Amino acid sequence: MSLLPLNDALARWREALDAAGALQRLPAETIPVAQAHGRVTAAAVWARISSPHYHAVAMDGYAVRSAMTEGATEAGPVRLRLGRDALYVNTGDALPEGFDAVIPQEETRVEEGWLEVTHPVRAWRHIRIIGEDMVTTELVVPAHQRLRPQDLGAIAGSGHNAVRVFRQPRIAILPLGQRLAPPSPHVEPGQIIEFNSMVLAAMAREWGAVANPFPPQDGDLDALIQQVRAALDDHDLVALNAGAAGGARDYAERIIRALGEVVVRGVALRPGHAVILGHARGKPIIAIPGFPVSAMTAFERIVRPLLADWLGQPEEHPPRLQALLPQTIVSDPDMDEFKRVIVAHTYRGAVARPLPQAAGAIMTIVRADGVIHIPRGQDGVPADSYVQVALLRSPESIAHTIIHIGSHDLALDILADQLRRAHPDRSLNSLGVGSLEGLQALARGEAHLAGVHLLDPATGAYNIPAVRAHLPHLPVVVMRFVHRAQGLILPRGNPKNLHTLADLTRPGVTFINRQPGSGTRQLLDYHLARMGIDPAAICGYDREEHSHLAVAAAVKNGVADAGLGILAAARSLDLDFMPLFLERYDLVIPAAHYESDLLAPLLAVIDSDDFRQTVAALGGYEVEGMGEIVFRT
Amino acid sequence: MSLLPLNDALARWREALDAAGALQRLPAETIPVAQAHGRVTAAAVWARISSPHYHAVAMDGYAVRSAMTEGATEAGPVRLRLGRDALYVNTGDALPEGFDAVIPQEETRVEEGWLEVTHPVRAWRHIRIIGEDMVTTELVVPAHQRLRPQDLGAIAGSGHNAVRVFRQPRIAILPLGQRLAPPSPHVEPGQIIEFNSMVLAAMAREWGAVANPFPPQDGDLDALIQQVRAALDDHDLVALNAGAAGGARDYAERIIRALGEVVVRGVALRPGHAVILGHARGKPIIAIPGFPVSAMTAFERIVRPLLADWLGQPEEHPPRLQALLPQTIVSDPDMDEFKRVIVAHTYRGAVARPLPQAAGAIMTIVRADGVIHIPRGQDGVPADSYVQVALLRSPESIAHTIIHIGSHDLALDILADQLRRAHPDRSLNSLGVGSLEGLQALARGEAHLAGVHLLDPATGAYNIPAVRAHLPHLPVVVMRFVHRAQGLILPRGNPKNLHTLADLTRPGVTFINRQPGSGTRQLLDYHLARMGIDPAAICGYDREEHSHLAVAAAVKNGVADAGLGILAAARSLDLDFMPLFLERYDLVIPAAHYESDLLAPLLAVIDSDDFRQTVAALGGYEVEGMGEIVFRT
Repeated sequence: MSLLPLNDALARWREALDAAGALQRLPAETIPVAQAHGRVTAAAVWARISSPHYHAVAMDGYAVRSAMTEGATEAGPVRLRLGRDALYVNTGDALPEGFDAVIPQEETRVEEGWLEVTHPVRAWRHIRIIGEDMVTTELVVPAHQRLRPQDLGAIAGSGHNAVRVFRQPRIAILPLGQRLAPPSPHVEPGQIIEFNSMVLAAMAREWGAVANPFPPQDGDLDALIQQVRAALDDHDLVALNAGAAGGARDYAERIIRALGEVVVRGVALRPGHAVILGHARGKPIIAIPGFPVSAMTAFERIVRPLLADWLGQPEEHPPRLQALLPQTIVSDPDMDEFKRVIVAHTYRGAVARPLPQAAGAIMTIVRADGVIHIPRGQDGVPADSYVQVALLRSPESIAHTIIHIGSHDLALDILADQLRRAHPDRSLNSLGVGSLEGLQALARGEAHLAGVHLLDPATGAYNIPAVRAHLPHLPVVVMRFVHRAQGLILPRGNPKNLHTLADLTRPGVTFINRQPGSGTRQLLDYHLARMGIDPAAICGYDREEHSHLAVAAAVKNGVADAGLGILAAARSLDLDFMPLFLERYDLVIPAAHYESDLLAPLLAVIDSDDFRQTVAALGGYEVEGMGEIVFRT
Repeated sequence: MSLLPLNDALARWREALDAAGALQRLPAETIPVAQAHGRVTAAAVWARISSPHYHAVAMDGYAVRSAMTEGATEAGPVRLRLGRDALYVNTGDALPEGFDAVIPQEETRVEEGWLEVTHPVRAWRHIRIIGEDMVTTELVVPAHQRLRPQDLGAIAGSGHNAVRVFRQPRIAILPLGQRLAPPSPHVEPGQIIEFNSMVLAAMAREWGAVANPFPPQDGDLDALIQQVRAALDDHDLVALNAGAAGGARDYAERIIRALGEVVVRGVALRPGHAVILGHARGKPIIAIPGFPVSAMTAFERIVRPLLADWLGQPEEHPPRLQALLPQTIVSDPDMDEFKRVIVAHTYRGAVARPLPQAAGAIMTIVRADGVIHIPRGQDGVPADSYVQVALLRSPESIAHTIIHIGSHDLALDILADQLRRAHPDRSLNSLGVGSLEGLQALARGEAHLAGVHLLDPATGAYNIPAVRAHLPHLPVVVMRFVHRAQGLILPRGNPKNLHTLADLTRPGVTFINRQPGSGTRQLLDYHLARMGIDPAAICGYDREEHSHLAVAAAVKNGVADAGLGILAAARSLDLDFMPLFLERYDLVIPAAHYESDLLAPLLAVIDSDDFRQTVAALGGYEVEGMGEIVFRT
C-alpha cells in the first residue's frame, strides 16, 4: 500500500467529495433557544428588541425629576410630594413618564406624604436607559458561533424564542469483524472486545455530532453492503471500523467499492495509516483502522476537520505546553507521526517522556498527558530539545499530577487510588518500566519518584549503591516503602514440582524472565551467580516480560512453567507461589520534590494507617518502617 | 445589608450545610460504559481481564517457530512445511500453541506447500504478548475521574460493561417574579424577558449536572413555598433566581426562612453581591440576583465549587492569558471584583481593555474575552500593569479575533457577519464608544482598527487632522470606508415639523445628544457654531446616548423629539429621517495591522462586491472608494 501524505490525502478526498456533492454545509433548522446550547448558528442573530426595551428602574426607591432636587442639602432638604413629584418604584419597573432619576430608598426620609431629599440627584441616575445593553437591529451573535450559555441569554433577551442552527451532523460507526465481543471478562482467545465504536462515538459527540455506534457487523459481504447502504441513507458520514481482525480491511474496501468509490487507500500517518477514504451515495465514507490508538488518531485527524467544516467552525487545537524532551525520539520522515507523552513538572521544568507507542495499547492514551506531532520530512527530535505538546488534559491537572517511573508494584496502584480520593486535585500517574530505568528517568527530570528494588551484586545491599552510582549529582532521599516476597510464580498445584532456582534448569521446564535493568532480573542474576547456575541452562531465560503481572499471566496461560515475581501478582491471577527471598522496594525521590507542595498529599497518604493496612492485606508485603527516610544524598 | 467576604461566606455556608447533612457526596450508580462519557467514577476501575488476553497476532502472515529460522538468507532460505511449521494467521488471531513469531505475508514466498524464509526471525516478532496493554488487577481509571472517550475504551477493554459513577447532581432553577415574560419582541414596558434560567441551566449542565429550569413562578408566598418544597424533594440543590424585579429578593428570603435557614445574606462579590445562601430540608438552597451578569458570576463562584466537591473533582480554572492593561481599573477594596475585558493581540502584544461593567448588560459577557479578578483588599489595577485574564474563549480564537473600537456603524455588523461566514477562523468584535475614544484605543494598543468620523472644526476636513493630532507617533493608514448621511432622526410623520438644526431651539422641542468625542457630536457642534446657535438653547443638549441606535430608540420611545444620527438607524426603528449632511466614516488601522495576516481576510471582505452591495442596500450610504487608502503616516 503506498501511503499518501496526510495533507494530500485530505485535499484529494475533499476534492472528490466536492465533485460528488458530498461536501456542502449541513441544512439549517430552527430550534427553541433553550435547547440550543452547544449548537452552531447557521445565520447571524440580529436584535428584534432593545434591551432594556424601556427606561428601566435599576434600584428600589423613588422616581423623581432631577431638576427638582437642585440645591438640596442636609441642612436645607428639598421636600417632594409623594404620589406627584416622587413615586415609589421597584427595580425593573418602567420609569414613569416625565421622571428622569431614582433615589434609592435608603438615601431618603419619608414624612407624612412627603419625601425629604438631602442632596441633588443627577439625571438618569439608577436608570437603565433603553438600549443600554443592546439596541434593535444590532448584531447579537454572528453566524457559525457555537452557542455558550451567555449567547442563549443574549439571543432570548433580544426577543428571539427560536434560533436558526445547523442540523447536527449524523455519524454512523459500524464495527466490522467476525470475532468481536461485547465487554466481558469471559472472552475466548482470538475474540476481541469491541470498544472502538463507543470511543469514536464519544469523540464525535464532543465535536457536536449525533453519533450512532452500531453493534458489530459479522454478516457476509452482501449483508454488509445492505447494512452500510441503509446507514448511508440515514447519516451524513459512515465510518467503518475495520477491526483488529485480519481481512476486515479488505472487506471494508470491497463494501466501499460496491457502493461508491475509493479515493485514498492508506495515509502516511502514524498511528493510523491504514485508512480508506471514499464516498458513496453522495456521502463521505471512511474505513478506520482497528487498533484503538490508530482509530482515535485517524478519526481525529481526518473526520474532525470535515465536521468542523460542515459546521463552519475553525479547527480547534488543544492547548499546548512547551516541554523539555531529554530523550531522542525517532520518526519516519515519510510519515506524520503523533507520539504520546507524559509531562512532569519537575526540578527541570516541564519535561516530556514518550510512552510506549504500541497502537494497540489504549492505556497509553489513557495515561498520556499529550501528543507531540513530528511532521513528515523530519526524522525525529534530538534529545534535550524543547517540544510543543498538544495537551490531552488541562495544564492545571498536569501541574497537579505526580509522575512515577520505575518498577511497578500493586501498592502504587492502591496509592494512586487513595491519593485521588483523599485529594481530588492530585493524581499519581505510574509508568512501570523497571528499577534502573526509573533512576535514569529521575536523572533526566522525567519523574517525581521512582520505585526501585535493585540488589547490588557485590554487597547484597539494596538500592543505595544503585542510587550512588546512577544519581551522583542529584540530591535525593530514599524512602522505605515495602519489603515484599519474591518467589516462583507457578501454575495451580505446581505440576512440575518446582521449589528452587535450581529446579528451573530441569529439562522440560520453561521459564519466563524479566527485562534487564528490572530489580527482579538483578535479583535472579545475583542468586544464580551465588548458586553457580548458568543462565543458559534455563530454558526461557531469554524471554522477557515487563511487569510482575505479565509474568504471572504468562504462567497462567501456559507460556511458561514458572517466573520470578511477587506474591500479589500470583494471587491476583489465582496462581501458586513459592517464596524465595524478601526484597526491599524503596521510593527514590529527588530532594526538591520530597519537600514540594505537589508531593505533600502523597506523603500524607503513605503515612496513613488506612494505606498501610490496605497494602498489608494484599499479602506478601511487610510494611514496617514505611515512610522512613533511610538515606539522603 | 452587610456583605461577607466571598471565602468566609463559602466557608460559613459549607459549615452549615455540613451540620445539616447537606454536604455529603452524591450516591453512586452503575451504568453501561457506553453511556458514561463525561460522568465521574465513584470508585477506581481495576482490570478484570488482561489486554490482550492472549498472545495476539499483530500482522497478517505466517506463524513460525523463531528457532527454525536461524541462519536463513536470500541465498540459503529456510523452507518450512505449511500446515506444520508455518501456519497462516490473521491479525487478531490467537498465536497457535508452540509458535512464537509471525512473518508478514509480504516477506515470504510460498511454493507447493512450503514457505521460504529468507532471513531469521526474532522471537515474539509481530506478536502482541498477553498483557501488553494492561494486566488483570491493574488500575485502569482512578476514582473521581471524569470519563473521556479513551477512558471508556480502556474500561470496556478491561472486561467491564458497566461502571460505577456518581449520580449526576440535580439542580432546580426557579425564576421568581410577577412580570417575567418568555422571549418575544412583543413585551410591554415593565415586563422583563426571563432568560437567566436557561443560562444558569446551561452552565450547570457544562459542570456535569442535570438542570431543570422551571417556568417563572408568580404565585403568592404560600404557593411559592409549596413549589420550592416540591423542588427540594426532587433535587440536590435549588437556586431561586430573584429576578430583576424589586421585592423578589425579599420573597426569596421569606421562602428560604419558611422552609429552612438563611446562613449568608449578601456576599462581597461584584457583580453578584445580592445572594442568599441557606439550606432547607437537608439541601442547599440559594437565591441568585436577577441581573444576568450578576447571576452568572454568583452561580459560577458559589454553586460551581459545591458541584465540583460533590463529584470529587478539583475546581477547574479556565486557561489564563497574561495581558497588558493600558488603562487603570478601579475596584472596591471591600469586594472581590470580576471585571469583563476584551483582549486584542496588537502591536503591543496581548492587550486587555475593560468593557462597560453594567451587571444588566449580558452583551458585555457575550463580547468579553475574559475576566480579571481583583481580589478583596486591592483598590484596583494601575495603568500599564500586566494582568492575568481568565479566558472565556480559547486563546486561539482570541488570537484570531479582530478588535474594532470606535464609532459604531451598522456596516461593521454586516462586516462581522460576512467575515465570519467567509472565514470561520476570524471574528470581528466591535465595541462602539465613539470616534475619539477609538483613536485613543489605537494609541493604547487595545484595538486593530477604529471607525472614525471626526470633523476638524477649523478646516471642515474629516479624520486626517484628528489622526495627526491624536496618533502622532503611531504609523497608521486611513482607509475610506463609507460616506453616510447624517440627519435628524424624527418620530414618524415628523409631528413637530423639524427640518433644520435651528428648529431644535424651538420651545417644546427636546433633543437627545451623543457623547463628547463622538463624531456625530463634533459634527453637531461644528454646524451649530457655523450657524451661530447656542447649544444651551437646545433642550436636551446635555442628555447623551452612546450610539446611533440608542438615539433612534430614544426618539422612538418619546424620550426626545429629535436626535442627530444616520439613516440606517432611523430606518431600522421605522422612524423618519431628515438628511442634513454627508459625512466621511473612515477606518484607521495601524500600519502593522494593515499588513498583518490577521486582518487580510477582513480587507478581502471589504474589497468584495457582495459586501459593498449589502451596505449600499441599507440606504444612506455611499460606498464609492471603499477600501482606498487616503492617508498614511
